[in-house]
Amino acid sequence: MKILLYNPNTSESITEKLYETAKLVVSSETTLIPKTAEKGFPYISTKVEAQITGTLVLEKLAKIHSQYDAIIIAAFGDPGLIPAKSLFNLPIIGLGEAAMLSACLFGKKFSIISFTNAMASWYEESVELLGLQSRYAGFRAIDGVNLTIDKIQSLQKKSLIESAKNAIKIDGGEVVIFAGAPLSGFKNIVQKEISVPVIDCAEAAAKQAELAVVMNKNTINKHKLPPKSSIGVDKNLSELISHKVDNGSK
Amino acid sequence: MKILLYNPNTSESITEKLYETAKLVVSSETTLIPKTAEKGFPYISTKVEAQITGTLVLEKLAKIHSQYDAIIIAAFGDPGLIPAKSLFNLPIIGLGEAAMLSACLFGKKFSIISFTNAMASWYEESVELLGLQSRYAGFRAIDGVNLTIDKIQSLQKKSLIESAKNAIKIDGGEVVIFAGAPLSGFKNIVQKEISVPVIDCAEAAAKQAELAVVMNKNTINKHKLPPKSSIGVDKNLSELISHKVDNGSK
Amino acid sequence: MKILLYNPNTSESITEKLYETAKLVVSSETTLIPKTAEKGFPYISTKVEAQITGTLVLEKLAKIHSQYDAIIIAAFGDPGLIPAKSLFNLPIIGLGEAAMLSACLFGKKFSIISFTNAMASWYEESVELLGLQSRYAGFRAIDGVNLTIDKIQSLQKKSLIESAKNAIKIDGGEVVIFAGAPLSGFKNIVQKEISVPVIDCAEAAAKQAELAVVMNKNTINKHKLPPKSSIGVDKNLSELISHKVDNGSK
Amino acid sequence: MKILLYNPNTSESITEKLYETAKLVVSSETTLIPKTAEKGFPYISTKVEAQITGTLVLEKLAKIHSQYDAIIIAAFGDPGLIPAKSLFNLPIIGLGEAAMLSACLFGKKFSIISFTNAMASWYEESVELLGLQSRYAGFRAIDGVNLTIDKIQSLQKKSLIESAKNAIKIDGGEVVIFAGAPLSGFKNIVQKEISVPVIDCAEAAAKQAELAVVMNKNTINKHKLPPKSSIGVDKNLSELISHKVDNGSK
Amino acid sequence: MKILLYNPNTSESITEKLYETAKLVVSSETTLIPKTAEKGFPYISTKVEAQITGTLVLEKLAKIHSQYDAIIIAAFGDPGLIPAKSLFNLPIIGLGEAAMLSACLFGKKFSIISFTNAMASWYEESVELLGLQSRYAGFRAIDGVNLTIDKIQSLQKKSLIESAKNAIKIDGGEVVIFAGAPLSGFKNIVQKEISVPVIDCAEAAAKQAELAVVMNKNTINKHKLPPKSSIGVDKNLSELISHKVDNGSK
Amino acid sequence: MKILLYNPNTSESITEKLYETAKLVVSSETTLIPKTAEKGFPYISTKVEAQITGTLVLEKLAKIHSQYDAIIIAAFGDPGLIPAKSLFNLPIIGLGEAAMLSACLFGKKFSIISFTNAMASWYEESVELLGLQSRYAGFRAIDGVNLTIDKIQSLQKKSLIESAKNAIKIDGGEVVIFAGAPLSGFKNIVQKEISVPVIDCAEAAAKQAELAVVMNKNTINKHKLPPKSSIGVDKNLSELISHKVDNGSK
Repeated sequence: MKILLYNPNTSESITEKLYETAKLVVSSETTLIPKTAEKGFPYISTKVEAQITGTLVLEKLAKIHSQYDAIIIAAFGDPGLIPAKSLFNLPIIGLGEAAMLSACLFGKKFSIISFTNAMASWYEESVELLGLQSRYAGFRAIDGVNLTIDKIQSLQKKSLIESAKNAIKIDGGEVVIFAGAPLSGFKNIVQKEISVPVIDCAEAAAKQAELAVVMNKNTINKHKLPPKSSIGVDKNLSELISHKVDNGSK
Repeated sequence: MKILLYNPNTSESITEKLYETAKLVVSSETTLIPKTAEKGFPYISTKVEAQITGTLVLEKLAKIHSQYDAIIIAAFGDPGLIPAKSLFNLPIIGLGEAAMLSACLFGKKFSIISFTNAMASWYEESVELLGLQSRYAGFRAIDGVNLTIDKIQSLQKKSLIESAKNAIKIDGGEVVIFAGAPLSGFKNIVQKEISVPVIDCAEAAAKQAELAVVMNKNTINKHKLPPKSSIGVDKNLSELISHKVDNGSK
Repeated sequence: MKILLYNPNTSESITEKLYETAKLVVSSETTLIPKTAEKGFPYISTKVEAQITGTLVLEKLAKIHSQYDAIIIAAFGDPGLIPAKSLFNLPIIGLGEAAMLSACLFGKKFSIISFTNAMASWYEESVELLGLQSRYAGFRAIDGVNLTIDKIQSLQKKSLIESAKNAIKIDGGEVVIFAGAPLSGFKNIVQKEISVPVIDCAEAAAKQAELAVVMNKNTINKHKLPPKSSIGVDKNLSELISHKVDNGSK
Repeated sequence: MKILLYNPNTSESITEKLYETAKLVVSSETTLIPKTAEKGFPYISTKVEAQITGTLVLEKLAKIHSQYDAIIIAAFGDPGLIPAKSLFNLPIIGLGEAAMLSACLFGKKFSIISFTNAMASWYEESVELLGLQSRYAGFRAIDGVNLTIDKIQSLQKKSLIESAKNAIKIDGGEVVIFAGAPLSGFKNIVQKEISVPVIDCAEAAAKQAELAVVMNKNTINKHKLPPKSSIGVDKNLSELISHKVDNGSK
Repeated sequence: MKILLYNPNTSESITEKLYETAKLVVSSETTLIPKTAEKGFPYISTKVEAQITGTLVLEKLAKIHSQYDAIIIAAFGDPGLIPAKSLFNLPIIGLGEAAMLSACLFGKKFSIISFTNAMASWYEESVELLGLQSRYAGFRAIDGVNLTIDKIQSLQKKSLIESAKNAIKIDGGEVVIFAGAPLSGFKNIVQKEISVPVIDCAEAAAKQAELAVVMNKNTINKHKLPPKSSIGVDKNLSELISHKVDNGSK
Repeated sequence: MKILLYNPNTSESITEKLYETAKLVVSSETTLIPKTAEKGFPYISTKVEAQITGTLVLEKLAKIHSQYDAIIIAAFGDPGLIPAKSLFNLPIIGLGEAAMLSACLFGKKFSIISFTNAMASWYEESVELLGLQSRYAGFRAIDGVNLTIDKIQSLQKKSLIESAKNAIKIDGGEVVIFAGAPLSGFKNIVQKEISVPVIDCAEAAAKQAELAVVMNKNTINKHKLPPKSSIGVDKNLSELISHKVDNGSK
């Protein structure tokens, strides 16, 4: 099966991190194809950026979706995920969605650890939209950190581990999610120092995508939405919405 | 004060309905300015369309926001509302948000009545995002109806009243919201036949916008979000996000 | 329109504070009439006092309601509000209700700040009755303070601002409500020092009352409750409940 | 121990029903003393009547509480219960509170059956205030019934049993509460025809009051509330609130 | 009436503590019979132990239930309680269930205090299964304590009182439950030093069992479950499940 | 990897159905080994049977767990799942848990369809324990059906499809789970006739187990629980609990 690992951030270095981590866990029958957004933000961190990126994701996927069996939207707040699921006739998996649903297998309550408090409110909205409030032990971030996305894992290792330990001890977290694409692969570095299971977002997304492709067999609900005309909407997307083109994979 | 009544649907006839209804309830000191979206869908009715429209709303408001004291996004599912609130330094009010918060003044539980079941899941997500589940008596729509948006009020009057009566009797609704821009003004036609208070979305939005402008005095939180660069994003919007231009009203 | 600003506390000084603040925000078409309770407590601060005051409010309003288009019950725990709404055929607005519903326009989660911990449990019951738990970031009060109601704003300014800042930073409050009639007007003094929108209860109540009057047009549900006889109940109230007199405004 | 069975309705016949049922279940060491309200309504059935009755209950109990070890407020919506609990230094038990907490011992979800839909919203507020929503299977009432309180049990037996059966089959009720003082004793008549445990409110209140007296031993928190002056409040109540008299039993 | 006080822990000393406390509060008409589990763990403190003990409880009760009018499962996490309630045709009361439902009579929010953090997650699952989350102020345990079950009350008195005081002041607990069989009787030692009502689990269980026996009169639902064959299941239990023997008391 | 598909029901025919379905979806690198319980019930359908089976599952797994990389407990109510997860140091996956978490990928709300109403309350407890209430559209079963487990799929096909259609149309289910081991494989027969994605429990469990094994790499928390002695507990289980033997896989 062919799975698109689509990074909706425009930073190539994040795509690489995601791909290096995810490719290690997929089955030998799976081809994982990384791709970086050409439009958008270097690193999405607000609801405004998520709104804008959500549309850019739909536009991009409208163009290329037919080449894949499943698509991962690889940013933790899952921009565009809910509409994409209803638009395309193939599994679409969000990085945050995958991480949180996977975490549920490993403990009653999961903690989300990130590198900036800016994300707290956005990520908590993801928890709410997933309906997982009662599995959620809380959010913790390292304080006063400049966003040098590429070096977070090396420079902030100690602070991130400290946050995870507080999440376990104080908040009662039984599983820890290091959230956000820039932290993919970090689990392999720190799992040994943390007493509960650590969830890696990239791993979770890749495995959930494989699961979804297999379980999606025989499901036929092409064009779930009625056709609709539009003005000034991206051509590929508009054609898809008006049912001029197909919405599934080849 | 100047309030923009922005209809994110591209149908002029809907804008007129909204404006005709809303202008009757604003204070004499308020100037209400209607405007119809140039890009988007004739009538937004899915989460895909809401996602796309949400970005179009941000783009449009980025261009014109500085001329107003408050802006109404006049579609019931409130496309772009949450990001717009964090981006612009002036009150942004959603049609659904206004209707539901107003309904809370008139009874413990409100029912939402619409003209198509297609909206049920989208509108319920609005209820969830507003955190008003415990005030919500449920959704009812008239069955098997073709969307002739302009004629719904006249052709479906009887069915809509019937739905409202069932919402009151069976679901326990103590207030009824006729939801969706095409039903603005419908309250004035049917209130006498319905035993509980009816909420008109356009009225609610106009009055909540006035309230917000007055209560917003002295509040200063310009550029609530840090500046961010972007690629391929609408020029006005991109300049706002990067703090090249101001995000408040004149 | 004529709106009664009814202070159910017996302290004239509180009525003045409420009126001075509220009169600045009403439309030029609105006449706001302040009135202080003749019976009751100088400052209501427990559920026992709220229970007793609730009945006193019904008694008073039974006597004078017909002169107004809407009535504000101007104490934060909203004594008598829910029964009054079902008894009188005109809009009744609570100070706490108005503040919390208004706060919802300005941010996802609101914090309530007061000058004494005694109110925590009573105010949280208001949040529950309004069904706004998921919008509520928590309660904070200044510690160890003697209730010199009249001087709280001047003497405790620093502590109250400190509490608000902690509510924002620690509890995640995105809007701050300074709760309780004695804090009306305080917003104008402190908004500049607080980074998120501040809600003033008196402003909120006045504007929500105006909104309710306008939106209540055409709503007819006179005597929502069936007639009932009683023994030993206040004469005006008893006549209203037994339908001997009208329950609406002139 | 001496327990006051206080019927806040003014109907002697209801008091008799309550007493006849409750006296059969108390321990031989318990003296149960019935008393009917002198002021109020023949049968409380709205939130307005509950508000007014709540104050009348406080006034009455302020006068006579010291003669008892516990007091039952014997109306299902528990008028005055929450303030009474914080005012008096002895156990105060509500009829609805007792029935619902007892029901929790007999099954996961309880249904509430009453003889009029008028009570639905009031009783559901009780469920909410008790925080028992997740134990609540729903409310059912018999339709189109005139309130001849005294004859409900004989005239409506069949309809009430039918409602209970629907509550079990359709709503998933695992325990049935026949709610409201006029239905006390009804359990003994109908239990054999209903396949799940039936809760009698009067029985529940009497036994919960005994339990509370025994478990309350050694608990000392006299005058939980600070002293407070008042104007125009009932003399006994006012003296209690201002700490001029004691708030416990002899 | 005969009530079995069944300690599913294998420690005789715990049974004695439970019995010494409970016997003081039962009515003179009640015979309370203590019994200690022969199989299981000295002191149950994990979900694994609760699972195993739950089955051992069913096995034991299958053998001896017919001699009693009600049975108390005297361990706080209530092992086997929910299945036992559906299997046996007589009241089965859990120690935790009884404590929490009783606590609801004494205040809005209860705090649970225990002697080890190990129980937090297990006890919170009890709160969830009882559906009492909104009455729950939180869990507190004393830190770094070795489990010398028998001496906890004497050695840890100061720390436990300190925990209770923090639960009241910081968490807003209005009632305090000292949880776990080893803390039965502790209330009598410490109530005077704690400003809110303290719930003793053994007292609560004994009184709730008495209440349940009386309220259970006339309730007939023998063999609530259909007969079922089995392999390798304890003989008494298997015969009960297959309806070869009766499931009620004599 | 080696995954044990453990059927805790004693019916071989159920094991075959589970295995025939699950083996088609696992990766070529996975060896799936079916095993039927030797002790227990032909088909678990009550909380009593789940309690007893839960212990039997722990006993069996204590003996054989070390030969596997993950274990599936293949009954929908997940008997023994929560304790097993805390006892064994390898992934343990429940049939119901896997189905519900997988369903979350395919739609906002899932409906559970089964062949008997007897399971409603037990399955809903699973939904609660998973914290997925807000993703749950409800339960539906076919009426008046004798449990001939082996022939349900062929004899009840029409009724089951009908239930699924009602779940979609009336309850708003966006994904349908055919619940219970006897319905494994049924998806392949009926998916084409159902307009939304159908979740097969056996498929879900197999894929979630694979996912868990891969994501569990490097996680080290051997013997999560402290050692504990016991009396009369199954030898293998007792040795595991007392840390005499290892709790992970080889």
